[in-house]
Amino acid sequence: MGLQLRSLVKQNGELELSLVEVETPSPQADEVVIRVEASPINPSDLGLMFAAADTNTLKQSGSRESPVVKATIPEARMKSMAGRVDRPMPVGNEGAGVVVSAGSSPQAQALVRKTVAAMGGAMYSQYRCVKIEQCLELPPGTTPAEGASCFVNPLTALGMIETMRREGHTALVHTAAASNLGQMLNRICVKDKIGLVNIVRTKEQQQLLKSQCAVHVADSSAPTFVQDLTQALVATGATIAFDAIGGGELAGQILSCMETSLTRFVTEYSRYGTGIHKQVYVYGTLDTGPTVLQRNYGFAWSVSGWLLWPFMNKIGPAAVQKLKERVVAELKTTFASRYTKEVSLAEALRLDEIAIYGKRATGAKYLVNPNKAVAG
Amino acid sequence: MGLQLRSLVKQNGELELSLVEVETPSPQADEVVIRVEASPINPSDLGLMFAAADTNTLKQSGSRESPVVKATIPEARMKSMAGRVDRPMPVGNEGAGVVVSAGSSPQAQALVRKTVAAMGGAMYSQYRCVKIEQCLELPPGTTPAEGASCFVNPLTALGMIETMRREGHTALVHTAAASNLGQMLNRICVKDKIGLVNIVRTKEQQQLLKSQCAVHVADSSAPTFVQDLTQALVATGATIAFDAIGGGELAGQILSCMETSLTRFVTEYSRYGTGIHKQVYVYGTLDTGPTVLQRNYGFAWSVSGWLLWPFMNKIGPAAVQKLKERVVAELKTTFASRYTKEVSLAEALRLDEIAIYGKRATGAKYLVNPNKAVAG
Repeated sequence: MGLQLRSLVKQNGELELSLVEVETPSPQADEVVIRVEASPINPSDLGLMFAAADTNTLKQSGSRESPVVKATIPEARMKSMAGRVDRPMPVGNEGAGVVVSAGSSPQAQALVRKTVAAMGGAMYSQYRCVKIEQCLELPPGTTPAEGASCFVNPLTALGMIETMRREGHTALVHTAAASNLGQMLNRICVKDKIGLVNIVRTKEQQQLLKSQCAVHVADSSAPTFVQDLTQALVATGATIAFDAIGGGELAGQILSCMETSLTRFVTEYSRYGTGIHKQVYVYGTLDTGPTVLQRNYGFAWSVSGWLLWPFMNKIGPAAVQKLKERVVAELKTTFASRYTKEVSLAEALRLDEIAIYGKRATGAKYLVNPNKAVAG
Repeated sequence: MGLQLRSLVKQNGELELSLVEVETPSPQADEVVIRVEASPINPSDLGLMFAAADTNTLKQSGSRESPVVKATIPEARMKSMAGRVDRPMPVGNEGAGVVVSAGSSPQAQALVRKTVAAMGGAMYSQYRCVKIEQCLELPPGTTPAEGASCFVNPLTALGMIETMRREGHTALVHTAAASNLGQMLNRICVKDKIGLVNIVRTKEQQQLLKSQCAVHVADSSAPTFVQDLTQALVATGATIAFDAIGGGELAGQILSCMETSLTRFVTEYSRYGTGIHKQVYVYGTLDTGPTVLQRNYGFAWSVSGWLLWPFMNKIGPAAVQKLKERVVAELKTTFASRYTKEVSLAEALRLDEIAIYGKRATGAKYLVNPNKAVAG
């Protein structure tokens, strides 16, 4: 038996977060049970956890040990919830812990007492039974906290670079670049000598990245933003961007500045713009408003959704394995994550904590330890 | 010597259209000179001809035989004109006429006195010297008027279907579907039994397409538009769209209705939407306003520019040749074009005519005959 965090959307438009006692399954031959000790709260977890609820309506009830959080989902957003109504969803894409029991196969048995990371969902649980192929054995001396974010951010950052290469680009643009993921991407690009144009929203974020050896950092709040961005695009030749923001004018601005940077190399006029393909991948929704495209950059462009999971399906397990091996090899350097705070499952449902980690735009990053004493 | 229509953007933001006498070059071994007798005014020609000029500022001067039209280009739009400032541009993507002289090669000589179509630009000229590979010999009994629109619309329509197939879709959506091009696409789809969802903007256009055996025609002005479109998407399974409009909410609405139609086949809930890729290609700019994407359709989507020329480069000359052969074989049926009016070069520069053919949104389609008596 163990506690598990659940997110429930009810037919009447109410969101309910609570902790439930769940049976820990006996592992099958190729499965292990992990006592989860560290699981990050990623932006991708917030989406599943809080659905489309209006965070101004959050209310707490229940006890200190077993809190219940409720909120209202605007009626207009309920349509997109149809698939999950009245089905309690466990949360937590990834995490790490110690294997406490294992199925009969030698590979499963070999993991007993080992510290492993796993990407299997439902990681905000005290015990989690997963297939061995979902596990990554961590090197000796690695703590669960150090291995908690092995997958989502590292594979997303590496996936961006892999996508860039496979689609024939040689440098890339990243927005919300001061995020945990953005800093990681910058470390990879510095190490691998890949041209990276970081776009941030404040002078402080610009300085942070500069202090981490970033070469190109454009601040979208600066009056010189368009020139700064264009100059960085000329310097790097970047024609692909990964955008965490989604809403507003930024995706289109990037395409426009790319086109301006490219016309320097084109001699013949074409009213259809340059023939050089410009790509923006939207992989996040920090701004839930509409994406506004002015289309003042010819016809050789594309704005598309991008997600880690379909990307991994596309490149196949062998290529994914290579990426994972790199993550493990550089877990304490390139792929190190820092956390603002470690919380228990019950603490994760406190309104004052939600107010901090729920603000997607800040640098605050929480780590859930489901086996930490219930109330800290 | 012969007359040629020229479009000139001046440094001071003035657009000038005029007729100039140009030398007819002596054809090289692999070239022929065509006396152009029919060249359509396509939307793609209007863009080059009128640049970004404000059509409310159009003014006429010059003589009846040699008119000059001037207009003002808004300052904000001049940036995108940089490549063509002070360079007079000839206009006219495609046309047909009779070969009046030819270079020394047997292939060139074989075309003398033949009626040919050509896609070479500068077709609003009395005489046009082109390479033989740009020519398509028309079957005996075909008039220049019948062959004038051999390329742009037919190859665009076939290119959409080819793109659909190559990208793994089995049915398609088309906007501004009552256009000349749209009616042509509908004839191809009826003949080849391909699922086509036509989107139009009026009840009259809906009836027009219905009278031409179109199965699915959704009228975006109808209050039931979203349901009508979704139903047609369910019936056809279309997951790719070609959008001539560009601006506004329509591209996003199509993606949203596609996603709704697809969720019927998906059993497991994912807050990232279905994994089925949805594509909108923007190939026109009937609405020059921004494209507004609400992104309420998961992450498996793409909105991209699409143009005939890069598409042809991509599939290569052998594949293009096959498409051209089909056009010639069905020139008087599937690929027949109808014209509202035939005008001379001088008439094409009359303000009252520009007021009609310049309105991209109407069904009015003009044919320029550069060898028609100057003023009709």
